[in-house]
Amino acid sequence: MQVEALPSSVRSAVQSHRYGGRRIGLVPTMGALHVGHVSLMDAARRECDFVIVSIFVNPLQFGPNEDFECYPRTLERDLQKCENAGVDLVFTPATSQMYGSGAESIVSLTSLTRKLEGRHRPDHFDGVTTVVAKLFNITVPDKAYFGQKDYQQQLIIRRMVSDLDWGVEIVTCPIVREDDGLAMSSRNRHLSPADRASSQILFRALSLAQNLTQAGSESPDAIADRMQQLMAGVQGVEPDYAVVVDCDTLEPLVEQPERAVALIAARVGKTRLIDNQILRFR
Amino acid sequence: MQVEALPSSVRSAVQSHRYGGRRIGLVPTMGALHVGHVSLMDAARRECDFVIVSIFVNPLQFGPNEDFECYPRTLERDLQKCENAGVDLVFTPATSQMYGSGAESIVSLTSLTRKLEGRHRPDHFDGVTTVVAKLFNITVPDKAYFGQKDYQQQLIIRRMVSDLDWGVEIVTCPIVREDDGLAMSSRNRHLSPADRASSQILFRALSLAQNLTQAGSESPDAIADRMQQLMAGVQGVEPDYAVVVDCDTLEPLVEQPERAVALIAARVGKTRLIDNQILRFR
Repeated sequence: MQVEALPSSVRSAVQSHRYGGRRIGLVPTMGALHVGHVSLMDAARRECDFVIVSIFVNPLQFGPNEDFECYPRTLERDLQKCENAGVDLVFTPATSQMYGSGAESIVSLTSLTRKLEGRHRPDHFDGVTTVVAKLFNITVPDKAYFGQKDYQQQLIIRRMVSDLDWGVEIVTCPIVREDDGLAMSSRNRHLSPADRASSQILFRALSLAQNLTQAGSESPDAIADRMQQLMAGVQGVEPDYAVVVDCDTLEPLVEQPERAVALIAARVGKTRLIDNQILRFR
Repeated sequence: MQVEALPSSVRSAVQSHRYGGRRIGLVPTMGALHVGHVSLMDAARRECDFVIVSIFVNPLQFGPNEDFECYPRTLERDLQKCENAGVDLVFTPATSQMYGSGAESIVSLTSLTRKLEGRHRPDHFDGVTTVVAKLFNITVPDKAYFGQKDYQQQLIIRRMVSDLDWGVEIVTCPIVREDDGLAMSSRNRHLSPADRASSQILFRALSLAQNLTQAGSESPDAIADRMQQLMAGVQGVEPDYAVVVDCDTLEPLVEQPERAVALIAARVGKTRLIDNQILRFR
């Protein structure tokens, strides 16, 4: 397994494979890899000939009061997991390599990025789209793999790729969960034992939404209300939002749809968690 | 010569050439091709194995009160010029193909785009960077060719490519001029005979700047003043700016530099013209 810190090294490593007509797969990550990330690597390994994982804690997507400084960094273990997953190349750039002096270009969306997470984390998605654009340009992948856990993020990346014509197929992989339903996240390791117990409420709220959808008796708005009520009762949990919205636009639903997405964000102790579930109405 | 209107057709046409290791050259244009454009095609033809010209009058880079509607469109003649120049593929997308419904992604710069042309044409450069990003992603060129006549534009494209890591080399080709010095521009055909005579003042002002620079007696600011004075006296010419600034940042010069760029914009009759000249101080 090749480990490269320089964009130029990655570019030339990839180029020879591309000229050979091999399919390049990219898994962009911020490291602190867990089973969810490994499922992305496994998918890339099945579908591509040359698998790249990028590990970069991207300062541009953290707000001034967010957890950039204490975001978990576990490079040695991450590299071992990549090796075990059969990854071909790991790209581990330094911040100075990614954002040189005078850098001033951003990729941004004017609508999707303003909703939900965007309201609570201004500029977050501009940081995400900008770094993903850079990673796409450095690695020029045929396919790139994102987790459904960051639902809004994968939607924004899909929109960006479609709007700006990158020749990459976006693959969204299912959420991987702990035994009790908590969605895998690098931030879970910050949860205290008490937080960890409280955090189950996110999955329970989404399960309630799914049960109510299957029962077929309640509207999307009523389901969202029931999720909010359930979460409101839990000590140490401060919900940011719990909504049921259009799968593509994240807009409120005007009619009963066939599909919708339930999205939740909440602060559990000092840790902010997000989760979601696709709902299928009858 | 292949002519394609669909991004997907261009992408697949280019792909086979890229896999063969051939060098792809892109000349992005808005059509109404003139000798300046042909010089870009000639440079691409010399340096690349497969030359693409895009012809697209990009609505995103025109302001609401600008000349999008009456921008010259001469497709048949343009295609003939491309054919004569040995171009391999001409990309002629429709607006609906370039900006599909719901498109909301833009590439923008936060500093270079706000100066000079950016002050007089708000959002202009966001339109340029966004469409050029799309063209880069559709054609994935090894080299792309821009004219020095749009000095600020080529500087912005270079910055964008460097910031966001496109694997394309930007080549800036010299300004091509009419016999009397007027820089070639698709908009020159809008000049009345009287406007056409007045328009010579732009080149005369730049020549004055060059002479003063070579004489070595005046500061950059004094040279800019002299250009402004010269232009102020001409009937039918309304200068927007005439400056001597840093070649890379477009900022005012603090010390006497080795090189600087003189940049001029003026409205001549109803037509807005720009021109520039690199100055070398002793």
